[in-house]
Amino acid sequence: MDHRGRQQRLQRSLSNHHLDALLVVHPPNIRYLCGFTGSAGILVITGKNRVFFTDGRYTGQARAEVKGAKIVIARNGPLAAAAAWLSANRLSTKPKSGRGASPARIGIEGDHMTVATRSRLAAALPSSLRLREAPALIEQARSIKGEEEIACLRSAVNLGSSLFDRALEAIRPGVRETDVAAEMEYAARKAGAEAMSFETIIASGARSALPHGRASRAAIPAEGFVVCDFGVILAGYCSDMTRTVYVGRPSVEARGVYQAVQQAQQAAVDGVKPGIKAGEIDHIARKSLQSSRLAKHFTHSTGHGVGLEIHEAPRLAAGQPEVLLPGMVITVEPGVYVPGKWGVRIEDMVLVTERGCEVLTPTSKELVAI
Amino acid sequence: MDHRGRQQRLQRSLSNHHLDALLVVHPPNIRYLCGFTGSAGILVITGKNRVFFTDGRYTGQARAEVKGAKIVIARNGPLAAAAAWLSANRLSTKPKSGRGASPARIGIEGDHMTVATRSRLAAALPSSLRLREAPALIEQARSIKGEEEIACLRSAVNLGSSLFDRALEAIRPGVRETDVAAEMEYAARKAGAEAMSFETIIASGARSALPHGRASRAAIPAEGFVVCDFGVILAGYCSDMTRTVYVGRPSVEARGVYQAVQQAQQAAVDGVKPGIKAGEIDHIARKSLQSSRLAKHFTHSTGHGVGLEIHEAPRLAAGQPEVLLPGMVITVEPGVYVPGKWGVRIEDMVLVTERGCEVLTPTSKELVAI
Repeated sequence: MDHRGRQQRLQRSLSNHHLDALLVVHPPNIRYLCGFTGSAGILVITGKNRVFFTDGRYTGQARAEVKGAKIVIARNGPLAAAAAWLSANRLSTKPKSGRGASPARIGIEGDHMTVATRSRLAAALPSSLRLREAPALIEQARSIKGEEEIACLRSAVNLGSSLFDRALEAIRPGVRETDVAAEMEYAARKAGAEAMSFETIIASGARSALPHGRASRAAIPAEGFVVCDFGVILAGYCSDMTRTVYVGRPSVEARGVYQAVQQAQQAAVDGVKPGIKAGEIDHIARKSLQSSRLAKHFTHSTGHGVGLEIHEAPRLAAGQPEVLLPGMVITVEPGVYVPGKWGVRIEDMVLVTERGCEVLTPTSKELVAI
Repeated sequence: MDHRGRQQRLQRSLSNHHLDALLVVHPPNIRYLCGFTGSAGILVITGKNRVFFTDGRYTGQARAEVKGAKIVIARNGPLAAAAAWLSANRLSTKPKSGRGASPARIGIEGDHMTVATRSRLAAALPSSLRLREAPALIEQARSIKGEEEIACLRSAVNLGSSLFDRALEAIRPGVRETDVAAEMEYAARKAGAEAMSFETIIASGARSALPHGRASRAAIPAEGFVVCDFGVILAGYCSDMTRTVYVGRPSVEARGVYQAVQQAQQAAVDGVKPGIKAGEIDHIARKSLQSSRLAKHFTHSTGHGVGLEIHEAPRLAAGQPEVLLPGMVITVEPGVYVPGKWGVRIEDMVLVTERGCEVLTPTSKELVAI
């Protein structure tokens, strides 16, 4: 990964956003910029300098991983050290005519820094340094994946997809949902996954109507849908997919609901191309479900970006004006949930290409009855 | 769990902290107070009211789980709904003599609310409502475990401890660290764990010198320490333990390092009792390692509280003035890390009792050679 280039592009963009420095605290953003995979550190980027602050637990790991930035092992914690460095370092500020230098503007990540951390940071800085909520510059950069990242995502998607075969073997009436998850997670680990990218969802019977029905100790009933939503982390990159299977013989109504979701998912996938608004994809899925009067049971948004985080930019939700661009990797995952009865969701990961899109998830979407 | 009682105690404490309401966003705090286990929601507590706001994905789950609070399914997200409710609800304020009502004070969780969320919230509230960083009232309450919680923690600790037997079976020269983790995690799932409480650490050979050496694809070498640090989540409660084994025949030096850590860990455990400062336990462990000149290689703090979160109050670090109290459940986990060479850590979970403490982790701490 081109960590140095990512940092340099960020450095060059700072002045466009009227920032003299950016203080990065969000671990996935730190990993993206400099390669550090630990959980405690702060990366400070100025026009001239790139410094990574961490603590003694991570000395060896920082030296092995951090690229393109100076490493400081902070005795009193990364925040105090970063504040001291910023205070001591003369940030380039343009003096306004007739007056002294104006305060330097330190960008912070408003979506990731806590109120308490901001208070501590502000208290540790001199009045010549002012904190500003920076735009989501790193998240924007991260939303467009480079070739190496797309290769990582393909590997994660393919490993994730292979776990569905384990689910199909494990899902039987009377088997606990957690036991299905156990088989999938074991296979993931043996195949090299660092972790699952979120808590595996195996939601059977009436639990399939819970969009976030994490695998429970409940036994799979003799009849009904089973929603399987899962993903792995491989080389830091996440996969995410959902398939819904039917245990028993699906009724005409069950087949109809499944088909409606499948059509909505395909319509949304077919809409993915550069230049379309994220909200438009959500609209396509919802409109498709309206024709079968199921749209009211589609109670979440249609998708999200995936990369170093399982949920990242862009969001595919109603009214989202963000435009899809080549290199974005998103999920498309409409669902229908009838409380107390059943639920169906189908989800692929999709790469936005120059001319349209490529579905990364190789798994069939036809209804499987077990 | 006595969710209603927890909410009522919090309600009664608000006025002591000059707060008219508390807006709870941290999921473990929400779970502690009202039982909701999902990831998106806001609990608003005032002197009179307790209202939980979530979105359409969690309708069924909220109805099944939330205790002691009114449920509002928010179309435009929990934050906007909570702000609208606070704006519409007349909070009790004491008018100062000769003037109108003073602004109501809305407490927020400074350690958990992001800067951006605070900005959005502030923009949505009228000037008659003022945001204040509240003290960590819920974390303080959570640090003292009730009987039901201690029972949950015991179950989690015992399940976690049983996984060490799987590790002993799996650890052999040439086996990948991730394959050891796979066996442990599979056993955890089959035994009913909801998840591991953090990414399993299996750090072998020179990697044992990385305090946070998550299991990697590296093969276990023919000779050296293997640090195993792991835990499970069971009924929401976390376990956490570390054992370090030796592959091959440990040298006199290796035995010496192990013994030094074992003595430091035992000395720190022996110090745990009500009334002692958390920092004092850290000091005891460090002092013990000084006698063998290893204290400089102990690069992290001695322990932390464990409960619904793997890291929670209190912190057992140098200088921490917080006093240990009966019902606290903490880890005691000194370690020694010689970069490029080896590392040893031993960790138990310990319950502070009325008269001293009880080590919850049942596993032997004698050096095991494999």
